[in-house]
Amino acid sequence: MSGVGAHRGPVGIVGLGLIGGSLAKALQAVGVAVVATDPVSTEEARAAGLSVVDDVAGLALHRPEIVVLAAPLRAMRTVAGELAEALAGEQGWDPTVTDVGSVKTPVREAVTDAGLADRYVGAHPMSGTERSGFAASSAELMQGIPWAVTCAAAEAGVAGTDPGRLERVLRLVTGPLGGTAAVLTDDLHDEAAALVSHVPHVLANQLLGAVSGAPVRDLALGLAAGSFRDGTRVGFTDPRRTEAMVTENAAWVAPVLRLAARDLERLADDLDSNAPTHWFFDRPDGVRELIGRPAGPRVTGLRPGDGAGGPDVGSDVEVVPLTGDWPAELVGRCAAGAVVIGLEDDKALLR
Amino acid sequence: MSGVGAHRGPVGIVGLGLIGGSLAKALQAVGVAVVATDPVSTEEARAAGLSVVDDVAGLALHRPEIVVLAAPLRAMRTVAGELAEALAGEQGWDPTVTDVGSVKTPVREAVTDAGLADRYVGAHPMSGTERSGFAASSAELMQGIPWAVTCAAAEAGVAGTDPGRLERVLRLVTGPLGGTAAVLTDDLHDEAAALVSHVPHVLANQLLGAVSGAPVRDLALGLAAGSFRDGTRVGFTDPRRTEAMVTENAAWVAPVLRLAARDLERLADDLDSNAPTHWFFDRPDGVRELIGRPAGPRVTGLRPGDGAGGPDVGSDVEVVPLTGDWPAELVGRCAAGAVVIGLEDDKALLR
Repeated sequence: MSGVGAHRGPVGIVGLGLIGGSLAKALQAVGVAVVATDPVSTEEARAAGLSVVDDVAGLALHRPEIVVLAAPLRAMRTVAGELAEALAGEQGWDPTVTDVGSVKTPVREAVTDAGLADRYVGAHPMSGTERSGFAASSAELMQGIPWAVTCAAAEAGVAGTDPGRLERVLRLVTGPLGGTAAVLTDDLHDEAAALVSHVPHVLANQLLGAVSGAPVRDLALGLAAGSFRDGTRVGFTDPRRTEAMVTENAAWVAPVLRLAARDLERLADDLDSNAPTHWFFDRPDGVRELIGRPAGPRVTGLRPGDGAGGPDVGSDVEVVPLTGDWPAELVGRCAAGAVVIGLEDDKALLR
Repeated sequence: MSGVGAHRGPVGIVGLGLIGGSLAKALQAVGVAVVATDPVSTEEARAAGLSVVDDVAGLALHRPEIVVLAAPLRAMRTVAGELAEALAGEQGWDPTVTDVGSVKTPVREAVTDAGLADRYVGAHPMSGTERSGFAASSAELMQGIPWAVTCAAAEAGVAGTDPGRLERVLRLVTGPLGGTAAVLTDDLHDEAAALVSHVPHVLANQLLGAVSGAPVRDLALGLAAGSFRDGTRVGFTDPRRTEAMVTENAAWVAPVLRLAARDLERLADDLDSNAPTHWFFDRPDGVRELIGRPAGPRVTGLRPGDGAGGPDVGSDVEVVPLTGDWPAELVGRCAAGAVVIGLEDDKALLR
């Protein structure tokens, strides 16, 4: 272990929506103490057996070792400020701050502007549904799922992510939560998330939007079956939530949308002129092979050659000692597709 | 009943792939006799208890009352020709010919060119999976699903669809198969199918294709979760099958792709310039409200105000007598979103 102190407070959670609520339930289910706060779901969460305080300042009394900012993206700046204020009055409370935001660069900016950069480690659980709010949350949504955990390298005049704090977050994710963690820079995360989450949300909205304005709208909806249901599922997400995710990651999403626009226009041209269209339909062959056919109804973490996802400690586990600049070492390996499946003594286990 | 003769032969099925195989199993499961033929799956189908003959000509011996062309789109012209040849040598066999193709205009052309127009009624079961072949078929896939059933109006010199044959197909779909039927022209079907099936298949391929060429490909696949899994599911369909569907319906698919390209380019522009993006994310509001939140894991037939799909004979059932130009009457109603849920004596029941 490197840099992990003896303090073991509860996990503090700011925001009990779909993700924060699910995280609270998943931690509580495995006996990790949780203290949470939420502007609207206090009573509901208490009824579910959670310890809920009135506001962010109220967390201080419980001295959580880790505070998870699980507010909507658009509220991250506000809650980071409230946490900084609460911290200013509390001697000896030294929490690590993390979050569950679907875009990492702007959250780091918000946390840095609040003066919390030194204690911050970014995190994004790759799991969700199109529903919102505490009522839709469930422990299962946060159990055994893939996470991205992001860190910053030291730059001129700015300290990089504290390895001890990174370790603390990795232990939480791969320990009680049973998940895997891809340790990444914010940019790597935001580029990958644009491809596998944000653009899929945009295209789901595009499918719904195209039907919306069609003269055959009602007829078409009457004929809609599996391809439409699955292709539009995340289009039923609260549009403000999707919009926040997409606009906060505009730098990575916009280029993927431009490529899509170019491809679809070219395909339309080829269809109109009876030109070959193999280039479009065969292009995903490599990815189809890598993924294999998803098995079962709930597949998260579509890792190459791994239809089922989830940790699978086999003979191909690699060990990275938590010495030297191990965060950079993990980023290098995870950028190539590896994930941390656990921490053991002073080693990270990857596959 | 109008124009339905006394003959009650088995249902003949040409092609035992995913759809033909599922149809054969679904009919057999409710006691409807089936005789089928398939160039590759004969042994497999016989092992599953189906009556299988060697070729299309072999169907003639069994005198099926309805012959369903369930071959791939690219083989429709060939099997229609084979059926015409088999019919030429058989006095007194007067089958109705239908199909299960995902695009209707080109199938009608193929059947018409084979000289079978007078006995043809188009059909498209709105159900499927990304898998192919008899091994992937199941009775469940064809039970209680929405169908499109297409007919042609009489034109100068060309007879329209025979009402008696249309009735026979509707009785099969809404009777033993327990489905609903939207009675449409080929064009109405092809326009609607482009929106709710063909374009969703294209966008699933686009999502897979975008990841395929990305520098962060493996990392991104490792982080992929529900939105990517659902958004790409039908992208795992045999690319030749998807390509055939899309190219055969080029006239309706291409314009939807051009609109999508325009929308995505505009959204990218707005993201780059921090312009408002509500126009994009709020546009599907009406459709989201109409559909309601899909309930349960298997929702087909996302009819307005109906999350669960399937026949539901309530107080809002409308009755259309099978007199006069009733096919045109049904097309008019179905174009506005109604579906036939059953035929009773000489009436069609719609909701």
